[in-house]
Amino acid sequence: MISIIKPTLLLNKEQCLSNISRMYEKAKNSEIHFRPHFKTHNSAFIGNWFRRLGIHSITVSSVSMAKFFSAYGWRDITIAFPVNLPELGQISELAAELNLNILGESSTILQTIENGLTFKVGFYIEIDTGHHRSGVLWKDLNEIDRMLEYLSNSNRLNFKGFLTHSGHTYAADSREEILDIYKDTVQKMNYLKDRYLEAWPELTISIGDTPSCSLVEDFTGVDEIRPGNFVFYDLMQYSLGSCTLDQIAVSVACPVVGKSMLRNELTIYGGAIHFSKDFLYKSNGEHLFGYIVRISEKEWSRPIAGAYLANLSQEHGIVRAPREFIEEIRIGDILGVLPVHSCLTANLMKGYVTLDGEIISY
Amino acid sequence: MISIIKPTLLLNKEQCLSNISRMYEKAKNSEIHFRPHFKTHNSAFIGNWFRRLGIHSITVSSVSMAKFFSAYGWRDITIAFPVNLPELGQISELAAELNLNILGESSTILQTIENGLTFKVGFYIEIDTGHHRSGVLWKDLNEIDRMLEYLSNSNRLNFKGFLTHSGHTYAADSREEILDIYKDTVQKMNYLKDRYLEAWPELTISIGDTPSCSLVEDFTGVDEIRPGNFVFYDLMQYSLGSCTLDQIAVSVACPVVGKSMLRNELTIYGGAIHFSKDFLYKSNGEHLFGYIVRISEKEWSRPIAGAYLANLSQEHGIVRAPREFIEEIRIGDILGVLPVHSCLTANLMKGYVTLDGEIISY
Repeated sequence: MISIIKPTLLLNKEQCLSNISRMYEKAKNSEIHFRPHFKTHNSAFIGNWFRRLGIHSITVSSVSMAKFFSAYGWRDITIAFPVNLPELGQISELAAELNLNILGESSTILQTIENGLTFKVGFYIEIDTGHHRSGVLWKDLNEIDRMLEYLSNSNRLNFKGFLTHSGHTYAADSREEILDIYKDTVQKMNYLKDRYLEAWPELTISIGDTPSCSLVEDFTGVDEIRPGNFVFYDLMQYSLGSCTLDQIAVSVACPVVGKSMLRNELTIYGGAIHFSKDFLYKSNGEHLFGYIVRISEKEWSRPIAGAYLANLSQEHGIVRAPREFIEEIRIGDILGVLPVHSCLTANLMKGYVTLDGEIISY
Repeated sequence: MISIIKPTLLLNKEQCLSNISRMYEKAKNSEIHFRPHFKTHNSAFIGNWFRRLGIHSITVSSVSMAKFFSAYGWRDITIAFPVNLPELGQISELAAELNLNILGESSTILQTIENGLTFKVGFYIEIDTGHHRSGVLWKDLNEIDRMLEYLSNSNRLNFKGFLTHSGHTYAADSREEILDIYKDTVQKMNYLKDRYLEAWPELTISIGDTPSCSLVEDFTGVDEIRPGNFVFYDLMQYSLGSCTLDQIAVSVACPVVGKSMLRNELTIYGGAIHFSKDFLYKSNGEHLFGYIVRISEKEWSRPIAGAYLANLSQEHGIVRAPREFIEEIRIGDILGVLPVHSCLTANLMKGYVTLDGEIISY
């Protein structure tokens, strides 16, 4: 077994590869473009696992991340984040080197963006289909018309189509609701596609969230998907029904540093600086920051029934569990934690150790 | 003004120095030992500001952090986290180089700890006075007796006294309640001190949380304080009444990347990977992830009335504000955010820029 001395992000490489190829196969079978989001793993090494499948287009969420993956030879990148004007100079430099797509949601800054660029970039209009985080509201046709009017005369902003992230699937109560949101999204995006296709015969629509992309089998009606979290999944996805517990490909190995039979709790070395602070609600209203698994030679177990990460401070985690489990565990033992949000956990841990002991840098 | 191109942690150095010297003066006036916790700033540079006041003893929350500050010449360090047995080898190495204090909460592992050490370390028994996160419950005299019995025959564990972190002050509803918790803590710790002082005439009691240490003026009755967060403060401390808004010495400068007059919201480049995800509740039950300030030449303003960071995803932040404010702001402008939890924000940002433009590494 791998020797763990402090909180360590374990990666089940086999499961991760299986998650990747499952999504790849679904996209292939639907004959649509697969542009995986790399913000979850953020690893050049894991990026190569996609490359081996023949995937050469990726999504990132910042200019910094685009620069990182550009340095590792990725030559077709969509920055799925509204253009950050102070970074225009860097965007322009990147556009000189690769096929770069950016996105915008306001006609008011198109001229500014264009003025800041020396090279041509692909440009998506970000659409808000109901998540209400960013994007032009899908029915705000006046604004979309204004943007397209500008784009039709633009030399450096090459209009590619409409892009959305239906993140409101994360608030869904059931798989059915996720599928309803997906259908609604595709309908709204196709409404726009139909409306503008004559003027822009090459326009495409790109959608992105992991819950939808995990549950939908046939992507007919969209041109591109950009899920990211599916590479690892996590308890949030499990609670939404987008993955099984077995599909979760990361866990955090944490040393037990305290044990209280009075409080029926274990203290682990593993806190907010390892997991971040996303949580789920248990049915009794308590917060849940992770499930507890046992780590053994080259695998981790199913979650221990009734055991969970109940609280986090900066470096401490508090585990509640049935008395028999607490009794059995000794200070110095290593427990695994299935995280609530693998993207934020990976961002904090900045590196992986596979169950074979292979160290994978971030 | 400093040129901001992406989320940047701004430090009001003058205010930070004032926070430090205020706490230092209070400890000095009370004639007690000041052992500031360095986990909040985690910066060798800011550490030097303490050194200039003649402070040479510090608190950290992990072996890694102890190694970091040891490399910068700190020679008297308490690791205020239960001993992590897999790191005993590293603890032993550190103990060879400096005055190291560790803490424990269980008699069952004292022999193991001792066996893992080559050099003498100071040893505190961690006491749970009501926070219920870690430590021996203050009235569990049987366990304390067992630990002291071991320690009285130990060659390498040099019993120093009782240490507690009354973190339940963070759940207090008023300044009065914080002061009540402080009084209760001091009483319980002195009960233990009185009980064991004859056998251990040099034993001391060490307490730590920022809310108590900020509100208490006279520390008579304790021997040492270890607050950390006071160096920057944050909205959580403000909401508890432990600081004023002016005492908050950090803000995150974030570019505005979107603006929706329909939703009455701004989107900023600044998300969970910059702030972590601690939040406060507004009086209407909504989540609050930060207050919004304007950044101008060498200062930031008081919070804009009615404006707040309402939601965070990985890189996006959603700002709600009065309509007039939204109207006035343009995409590309820079706004400041007073964070809810400065420790977690600083841990993610890993560096500071002072209002004079000085870059301070983490």
